[in-house]
Amino acid sequence: MVLDQIQLADGISRVEIAQLTGLTPQTVSGIVRRLLDEGIVREDGASRVASGGKPRTTLRINADAGSAVGLVFDPVELTCAVVDLLGRPVVVKRRPTPPGIDPSQVVAAMAELVADVLDEAKVSRDDVLGLGLATPGPIDQKLGMIVAPPQLAHWIRVPLQSMLSDATGLPVTLDNDATAAAVGERWSGVGRGVANFAYFFFGTGIGGGLVLNHQMYRGGSFNAGEFGHSSVLPDGPECYCGNRGCLERLVNPSAIVAEVHRRLGHPSGADSSVLSQAFREDPASVDHAAIQLAAGAGDPVATAVVDEAAAHVASVAVSIANFIDVDLIILGGHGIQHVESRYVDVVAAALAARPLARRIRVVKVEASPLGTDAAVVGSAALVLHATYSPQLSALLSD
Amino acid sequence: MVLDQIQLADGISRVEIAQLTGLTPQTVSGIVRRLLDEGIVREDGASRVASGGKPRTTLRINADAGSAVGLVFDPVELTCAVVDLLGRPVVVKRRPTPPGIDPSQVVAAMAELVADVLDEAKVSRDDVLGLGLATPGPIDQKLGMIVAPPQLAHWIRVPLQSMLSDATGLPVTLDNDATAAAVGERWSGVGRGVANFAYFFFGTGIGGGLVLNHQMYRGGSFNAGEFGHSSVLPDGPECYCGNRGCLERLVNPSAIVAEVHRRLGHPSGADSSVLSQAFREDPASVDHAAIQLAAGAGDPVATAVVDEAAAHVASVAVSIANFIDVDLIILGGHGIQHVESRYVDVVAAALAARPLARRIRVVKVEASPLGTDAAVVGSAALVLHATYSPQLSALLSD
Repeated sequence: MVLDQIQLADGISRVEIAQLTGLTPQTVSGIVRRLLDEGIVREDGASRVASGGKPRTTLRINADAGSAVGLVFDPVELTCAVVDLLGRPVVVKRRPTPPGIDPSQVVAAMAELVADVLDEAKVSRDDVLGLGLATPGPIDQKLGMIVAPPQLAHWIRVPLQSMLSDATGLPVTLDNDATAAAVGERWSGVGRGVANFAYFFFGTGIGGGLVLNHQMYRGGSFNAGEFGHSSVLPDGPECYCGNRGCLERLVNPSAIVAEVHRRLGHPSGADSSVLSQAFREDPASVDHAAIQLAAGAGDPVATAVVDEAAAHVASVAVSIANFIDVDLIILGGHGIQHVESRYVDVVAAALAARPLARRIRVVKVEASPLGTDAAVVGSAALVLHATYSPQLSALLSD
Repeated sequence: MVLDQIQLADGISRVEIAQLTGLTPQTVSGIVRRLLDEGIVREDGASRVASGGKPRTTLRINADAGSAVGLVFDPVELTCAVVDLLGRPVVVKRRPTPPGIDPSQVVAAMAELVADVLDEAKVSRDDVLGLGLATPGPIDQKLGMIVAPPQLAHWIRVPLQSMLSDATGLPVTLDNDATAAAVGERWSGVGRGVANFAYFFFGTGIGGGLVLNHQMYRGGSFNAGEFGHSSVLPDGPECYCGNRGCLERLVNPSAIVAEVHRRLGHPSGADSSVLSQAFREDPASVDHAAIQLAAGAGDPVATAVVDEAAAHVASVAVSIANFIDVDLIILGGHGIQHVESRYVDVVAAALAARPLARRIRVVKVEASPLGTDAAVVGSAALVLHATYSPQLSALLSD
């Protein structure tokens, strides 16, 4: 909790930490002494004079005291970063996820990427506090396993945590990718200082994370925030999860590509679109990235499809406002790259018009400023928590 | 927090309170001394010998030290109870809510009912700690107002808290009806000791309450838990809230009555139903209570309609499992009286088959054992919190 306050603040005194956490000044001083001894926290030369009281020493994170590695496992792409203790990415690298179904190949690719990133950042493995791995849910955090994840149907109970630890020689913490991204937003994005927020993570699928009462809320089985699995069309297509017409089933990249292709194949829809000729020459060239770029530039077919997808997201956002009464909804992830503002506009309009408590206050919506880096920053942030606050996750979990 | 632990436990020692709350033994002792002085808590003669340590005095709530009044304001019915400090209702009385749109008539009826209940319980007004009023949301708790509630369209910003306090001479605390019912379940129902649960409250509308990490979760504007306002049919009928096809719009008592009437009016549906003759003689006699009784007895038309309603509830329950990852979902309120087990069966089947994390653990569902008394018990429990822990709601709210 103490380290958390120092991370969140831009300079903070021991007295302020005691006030914010409810811990006694003695307890705070003891913990700060340990953090100073370990070099994680430093006393800032500047000291602020409190009104009438004696000067208070400002504490800050010692950004160079160590590094953490964040690794995001998306079925399509691996992203890896070395992050300093202030949550600033020093080096970020991406590579495609090996397409096979063999977990050991994926783990080998992960280990290679970690080695590349450490090399480029000139960080020795000994100075790395740990590796935070963010993966699609559902995960069994107690066993360090991912359990039959969405786009990896053959990955039944793979002990990813121990496999990756063996392959890299680093201690590995495992978290849901969307939880990790929400941690990143809380640490250095628009979620900073917001008491209650929901974070929508648009990757290959749609996940989410919740910060409630200023803390990550993980849920009874560590799987809270699965916003992609709400049935928005009760008679819609079956989702792999067992539900019908799930948000994720309607809004994931391949569903959007399929819908744009359907419209481009239809004579009346094709004429006005810049995608039309490309589609006639090579349908495969009209992929998700091309569609997002076209929608961002105002292409009528691409924008119509994106806006329909955003309307489904808005419906779930309204449910979240009604169920959880958050202060802010953050939209992020590579799945909405280039079209963030279209999503924000559609969701904001719904949040102003439809939640039951809208006359008391309107829930805000913002695009993630961290974009695709939120998860990789957050997964590294989770290493810090795991390293310095082994009690924290226990505290949060009950 | 200390009082909360004593209330939740069936006898607890100071040491155990310190362990459970994280407070220091000194702090706990100081607070317990004050609670003993005020007579709220008593030391139980029996003391349990800890393994090897010295005997620990058991603390219990002194049930007779005071009373609280709970009052539930449903647009159709007022329910009022005197509750002892252990949350046991001493006297419960109900009366119809005056049908007019004039708030002062309703407040006068409330004050009369409070006087009746106190008379019957032979409790003097001086021994009443306060009056907990549970009302339909949305409410503005800071201003003590209910804000344009569902079935009371003309009640725009009525200062109910101060009006009722003036009329009864008692301090009044105001809370959402479903939040109050969840508090009741946490205090003396199936929610006792459960870390994370969602409570569905079926009244004239459908509300809900959330207990997360063992605490009531109220949300940023004190309006969390509006489970009735999730769009389960995107092209469904308009809801007063601004959404379409809301759960509450499809499952509220008048919607269920309308659907049963439609089926009974249809020749093929009517034959097999015990409601058929009553409907031919007097359609108005086939009201919500008659339908619930018939469904509870297995009537085919009534059960088909109730099971469809339960399927809509199940869809929202699955979303809540996916979003909030609760351990338990509780169904309660007079809206499902006599058909609790049908709702539980349909929701349980969905929770076993459709949430994403079902392979990690299955979310339980239970009918409220407190039934229609949960809200009135909970609203009285909130008085205790408001009386003895003015800091608590502040703590919970940020």
